[in-house]
Amino acid sequence: MIDCGEGAQLQFRAMKLNFQKLNCIFISHLHGDHCFGLPGLVSTLGLLGRTSDLHIYAHADAEKLFAPLLRYFCKELPYRICFHAFNPEKNELIFEDKNLKVTTVPLKHRVPAAGFLFEEKPRSPHIIREMIDFYRVPVSLIRAIKEGAPFVTDAGETIPNTRFTRPSEPPGKYAYCSDTAYYEQIIPVITDVNVLYHEATFCNADSARAKETFHSTAAQAASVARAANAGRLLIGHFSARYPDEQILLREALEIFPHTQLAYEKMILKV
Amino acid sequence: MIDCGEGAQLQFRAMKLNFQKLNCIFISHLHGDHCFGLPGLVSTLGLLGRTSDLHIYAHADAEKLFAPLLRYFCKELPYRICFHAFNPEKNELIFEDKNLKVTTVPLKHRVPAAGFLFEEKPRSPHIIREMIDFYRVPVSLIRAIKEGAPFVTDAGETIPNTRFTRPSEPPGKYAYCSDTAYYEQIIPVITDVNVLYHEATFCNADSARAKETFHSTAAQAASVARAANAGRLLIGHFSARYPDEQILLREALEIFPHTQLAYEKMILKV
Repeated sequence: MIDCGEGAQLQFRAMKLNFQKLNCIFISHLHGDHCFGLPGLVSTLGLLGRTSDLHIYAHADAEKLFAPLLRYFCKELPYRICFHAFNPEKNELIFEDKNLKVTTVPLKHRVPAAGFLFEEKPRSPHIIREMIDFYRVPVSLIRAIKEGAPFVTDAGETIPNTRFTRPSEPPGKYAYCSDTAYYEQIIPVITDVNVLYHEATFCNADSARAKETFHSTAAQAASVARAANAGRLLIGHFSARYPDEQILLREALEIFPHTQLAYEKMILKV
Repeated sequence: MIDCGEGAQLQFRAMKLNFQKLNCIFISHLHGDHCFGLPGLVSTLGLLGRTSDLHIYAHADAEKLFAPLLRYFCKELPYRICFHAFNPEKNELIFEDKNLKVTTVPLKHRVPAAGFLFEEKPRSPHIIREMIDFYRVPVSLIRAIKEGAPFVTDAGETIPNTRFTRPSEPPGKYAYCSDTAYYEQIIPVITDVNVLYHEATFCNADSARAKETFHSTAAQAASVARAANAGRLLIGHFSARYPDEQILLREALEIFPHTQLAYEKMILKV
């Protein structure tokens, strides 16, 4: 989960997501709309009988602020909460498992803030069953073939690996950048992402206000996407002043054609 | 506002209530579902430019827990938050203005908890315009007549006050009792309320669970309403285990006929 504003647990439930599958929460910065949902979510996970650790990645102040509250309100929690502090000014690896790497993306906001880059690791190629059968490859060698080895037949013939495998889908890359002013330093860090979520609080006419509040315009978000060669751009965090967000979409589309507006409960394939 | 669970500000907005009219929040007890909405609401009131004080009535721990959070997240709040600690074990007056009195109703729960009794003060009687004109009562005497004085005509005739006034609506009395086990001591404190809100977490079949968790059954809520001679009973705080809350309503209705199920965004005239 990225960020956890007030009501996040209600949205989680409304979308019928599985609470058991939630293991890590990445908090971009300590403004209420990005973290006030933590105490409620933590309590609910306790009531649901969770036993495995929950990892919260955030600025060091998060633990100082929320740990006393959680100690008071969630006295007999059946699971552990592990706070992991990161330095929002650094581009650093904060999470890694066999499938995924998460690194921080320093942002420019009124308080220390970081975005997150999620990179899938390359997957093994797919085995072509028919060829395995045709050459009678023993099961014991399949792992080696998945890892790229050729196959040598009983007659001594070497069959290249490419005959047995076809490449898997390329690993996905997703970057989340919110909240932030226009910040060029983001670009090299997130280059070639499949999907970039970038905040777009204001339209061009309000660019002075964007600068003042350390937020971005839709056009700025689109410039970042274009410069970073993103596959698609998802914009969000719209100011409530715009009754119709199409103005933001139009301004972004002029610069970066593959732009979409984010909306509540949106599901997006990376 | 009574209690402030997560998402209270969203419901407030969804109901198009006026944030400017919110001056006092009464927190019954420090369980998350009754107070996790405070930081978000306080922030939003700040963003809306509130300048008048906001009063929060709660157990003394509320200030210890929330004040550090509010100091961090709501640094430049344009208004003051005044915490007022009350002792949940006592039936005491905690708020009074020219229209209303609020007293605490000690409850029996797993943590210190109090309900609240809201009592309107008697209103002045209505003036009968036609009679004032008929007897040519000078404007300067109207206040005295509103307060019960008779009127003496120029001819020395005394006209009784009842000729000039008709009684105003009787003052309303509303009690909120949640969360609590069945607790007889509530009854004398809330006698003759127009409306009683009483929690009804469980049905009769789960009364052991009610006892264990310091909650009430619907039938217990109804017994309290009957013994207190309440006008109407509103039950709520239903356990999620009941897909259909009609079972709770039926069990309450057997004991107290003027019972209704509470639902989200319900509007009820006291």
